Amino acid sequence: MPSYRFKITIEYSGSGFAGWQRQTSQISIQQVIEEAIYQFSGEKVAVFASGRTDAGVHALGQIAHFDLSKQYQHYQILESINHFLKPHLIGIVACQIVTADFHARFSALARHYMYVIANRPSRVVLDFGRVWWIKRPLNLAAMQEGAAYLVGNHNFSSFRASACQAKSPIKTLSKLVITRENDRVNFCLAAPSFLHHMVRNIVGSLVLVGLNKWPPEHIKIALNSQKRAAAATTAPACGLYFMQVDY
Amino acid sequence: MPSYRFKITIEYSGSGFAGWQRQTSQISIQQVIEEAIYQFSGEKVAVFASGRTDAGVHALGQIAHFDLSKQYQHYQILESINHFLKPHLIGIVACQIVTADFHARFSALARHYMYVIANRPSRVVLDFGRVWWIKRPLNLAAMQEGAAYLVGNHNFSSFRASACQAKSPIKTLSKLVITRENDRVNFCLAAPSFLHHMVRNIVGSLVLVGLNKWPPEHIKIALNSQKRAAAATTAPACGLYFMQVDY
Repeated sequence: MPSYRFKITIEYSGSGFAGWQRQTSQISIQQVIEEAIYQFSGEKVAVFASGRTDAGVHALGQIAHFDLSKQYQHYQILESINHFLKPHLIGIVACQIVTADFHARFSALARHYMYVIANRPSRVVLDFGRVWWIKRPLNLAAMQEGAAYLVGNHNFSSFRASACQAKSPIKTLSKLVITRENDRVNFCLAAPSFLHHMVRNIVGSLVLVGLNKWPPEHIKIALNSQKRAAAATTAPACGLYFMQVDY
Repeated sequence: MPSYRFKITIEYSGSGFAGWQRQTSQISIQQVIEEAIYQFSGEKVAVFASGRTDAGVHALGQIAHFDLSKQYQHYQILESINHFLKPHLIGIVACQIVTADFHARFSALARHYMYVIANRPSRVVLDFGRVWWIKRPLNLAAMQEGAAYLVGNHNFSSFRASACQAKSPIKTLSKLVITRENDRVNFCLAAPSFLHHMVRNIVGSLVLVGLNKWPPEHIKIALNSQKRAAAATTAPACGLYFMQVDY
């Protein structure tokens, strides 16, 4: 039987989903997309993502692939899935026909995340569920100084969720840039791959620096201790965006 | 009895509200704020806005005033109202104590609106309910050319809702700037005051120009005809933001 592989770029709001991966009791993004593919193709497929996202985490450029036995044009895939996704805040923004050696997860060279904080006195209204609201002013320069200790190849055990399934805690953080635009503080991160909760644990720790509760050098101490308890609480899921995958 | 006047700046998501003004059957922003004031002060007040917004229209800088018989510090008003607003996507972002001659509506010198279009092939997901999604590419230069006919003092009957209660259809549109940033097309408008649906009717008509269904000069013809039927359908409420009031 012939098989055709499709690569899709997915945007979704993490609010209201149990995350990417199929669950028995709660609705997941993977399930909704697999069902939409079934509705137009009649084929029960497994959709493989470049990486899982947790409940509440949003995506602007999640990548996934799947195989169908029938050939379709890329725009047919895009329009058909989107048609059946309609009640949900999930959308396919691009589709490409790829060769069988493409794998959304294993072919990925780098992943890009953004974490968004609304740093302002008043509660977030229009962006509720889309940012982490921090009332007290964050010290940008201190956070940038702390962030510099994390860039590069390190043992990130201190920033790794206990449930993390990665073989090794050693990762290469290739980018960690923090910028401020009005009341928004954006953290842009990139790495070939990340540990579970790594971005949110890094942001949680840098926020302690930003609030002047930790000196910037404490990030280095937390990193070197290689113990989860040495770093801060995980930042909330709602501020995290899965932006892009490089292949 | 002494009376103290407070000016508040309000942010809200229009989704899920019947608009600013109190309704008998549906929840309105005015009602929620008046109830929050009652909850902390025990006083039943009328809150006067600088202008009403329709169901679905958002605000970043709506202005309102109200009077209380007891004196409060500005931050007490802000924190107390926000405490009782919490289940709702309405927030007070600033509060000022003002003199009795300040009136949110009658003292206003200019009002600023923004209308946001997501102009991209794929359906809007993360910004659902916050922008007007237009799939086909909009011609920015043509819209800008059409917009130029509207700036200034004109009879705006063609862009006026039949339910409009304004005494005169003559208004002075002091600003109408259209910009594009990636897939966003933003319309920034300012005037001392607007007719009911005026911004949304102007945007609806300029979009016909952007889609090359009307030549830019057709905006002038629509304006000069002074008939509502000569202009386009009202643009959806969800793309409209009440930004700012000048006093």
